[in-house]
Amino acid sequence: MATAEKSVLALSGGVGGAKLALGLADELPPGELHVVVNTGDDFSHLGLHICPDIDTLLYTLSGNANAEQGWGLEGESWNTMDALQRLGGETWFRLGDRDLATHLWRTDRLAQGDSLLEVTGALATRLGISSHIHPMCSTPVRTTVHSEERDLPFQQYFVKEQCAPIVSGFSFEGITEAAPNQNVMQLLQDAALSAIVVCPSNPFVSIDPMLQIPGMWQALRDSPAPLVMVSPIVAGMALKGPAAKMMAEMSMPVTAQGVAQHYCRQYPGLVDYFVIDESDATLAAEIAALGMEVAVAPTIMKTREDKQRLARFTLSLVGA
Amino acid sequence: MATAEKSVLALSGGVGGAKLALGLADELPPGELHVVVNTGDDFSHLGLHICPDIDTLLYTLSGNANAEQGWGLEGESWNTMDALQRLGGETWFRLGDRDLATHLWRTDRLAQGDSLLEVTGALATRLGISSHIHPMCSTPVRTTVHSEERDLPFQQYFVKEQCAPIVSGFSFEGITEAAPNQNVMQLLQDAALSAIVVCPSNPFVSIDPMLQIPGMWQALRDSPAPLVMVSPIVAGMALKGPAAKMMAEMSMPVTAQGVAQHYCRQYPGLVDYFVIDESDATLAAEIAALGMEVAVAPTIMKTREDKQRLARFTLSLVGA
Repeated sequence: MATAEKSVLALSGGVGGAKLALGLADELPPGELHVVVNTGDDFSHLGLHICPDIDTLLYTLSGNANAEQGWGLEGESWNTMDALQRLGGETWFRLGDRDLATHLWRTDRLAQGDSLLEVTGALATRLGISSHIHPMCSTPVRTTVHSEERDLPFQQYFVKEQCAPIVSGFSFEGITEAAPNQNVMQLLQDAALSAIVVCPSNPFVSIDPMLQIPGMWQALRDSPAPLVMVSPIVAGMALKGPAAKMMAEMSMPVTAQGVAQHYCRQYPGLVDYFVIDESDATLAAEIAALGMEVAVAPTIMKTREDKQRLARFTLSLVGA
Repeated sequence: MATAEKSVLALSGGVGGAKLALGLADELPPGELHVVVNTGDDFSHLGLHICPDIDTLLYTLSGNANAEQGWGLEGESWNTMDALQRLGGETWFRLGDRDLATHLWRTDRLAQGDSLLEVTGALATRLGISSHIHPMCSTPVRTTVHSEERDLPFQQYFVKEQCAPIVSGFSFEGITEAAPNQNVMQLLQDAALSAIVVCPSNPFVSIDPMLQIPGMWQALRDSPAPLVMVSPIVAGMALKGPAAKMMAEMSMPVTAQGVAQHYCRQYPGLVDYFVIDESDATLAAEIAALGMEVAVAPTIMKTREDKQRLARFTLSLVGA
């Protein structure tokens, strides 16, 4: 892998993480941003290989994401779904007509023997993205949500049942056999890597799957580059998705501090800097007591400028 | 299989055959028409299981076919194909957004273990079709076009290369292992079957694959029901598709008589009645000499009334 002179590595799940990734891409010279992306949400549906987090990154970084809807493509049409509904087919996972092309292309290339790493790289290039998008691994890892009565595949929990089931934990099938993306592992040992940014993504179903790939979190911890994490919980709420609901159901404090505790316990020594929202400034001392540098900033990203400002803040925090 | 009191069996390929099938469906009481359809054109493309002739029947009999274009659905949109083209994907086989739903649904059901017979029946029902559509067999048969330099899968010849290669013959992979659709075999022995109509479809790539399934043509010949065939060649031309071009390339007379000879040689005793267009009336005596009853009628089907009139003619010819 040819790397730019300097590089920054971001870890991201879907929508929330992609916002900061877009800010970072805007702030850094072309080619300097690398994003490692969760593939635990990936699933096979209607015969298609669907990678929701990768696609959110692809669509966000190429400027095609539907910002209002929070997922999928802007100006999307739904003619295939409408026809599938008339046939009585499964339409709970909404696949737009243009989005379908991504899934068809990926599924076909994978069937022809290309790896998910190659296919993702090719999609990014074809969409005109200069940042590097790295699937966390090339073998399948599948997130299962454990709820009180039953276990659910992630998309069934997330989309079909709209996060209604009460969560008791998570597991990641295939994780013990998974090898971390070697491009990412190389990057982590590279002196040109100036920062690792953990985007404000769901700790349990976006970041944990990546960190639990054997060797991954230790490599992140041992990298010479400092690691800065942006809290996905602001004023006791998740800005996007079910993180806060999950924390409450698992009897964790639904605060930025609760997030920091989760990472400290699971991955000691991983987080160097922890960025909390200004509305959570009073939590700073207690989080610092966990052994992290704490920084306070406006972390809510509504506009493109918000994303760029938070990106600049995280980069300047670690001198990147 | 529950059959209606009376029944008529049609053999059809794609567009040309579907026209007469529509006429027959209009003329017969609901549920009386059975159509056995060529699946030699089926192929796997972008991971989808595509059955062009079955779909043409489904779309034609449900009133959704794009008559002007000659294939696909009316009022179709092409957003997936446009997006696939931007990704540099394969777009030589044009899949409309609504048409894609059929392929996704079929592919998914087949992957879940349903047979092509079940899936086709379910699609017909869901599209509100009262006629019975029978794939010729449930195992894959794939037509290969032999041309002077090389062998081509049918869709590559037909769509990608637009029938340009010069044809020397055909083969049907999987045909010796294929078993004829048992619903069709039962129907052929049923006293309620009043007629077998071979629609004006391509003899070599639409009708031959059906007749060459082991036991199929003999069962058609031995059925108590009379068999009437409508010539796909009118005044030395194929009304649709490459039949005439193929005949010329294989040094056959490009006439209705050439068609009749082909069937007489390959399937002696199969055809009881042979319908030729009024423009070919002068060929009647020579065709009759091959051992068939010859009937002359206007066979060009432009309007719905044309289709119904030809259907009435073929049915009355055999007293059905």
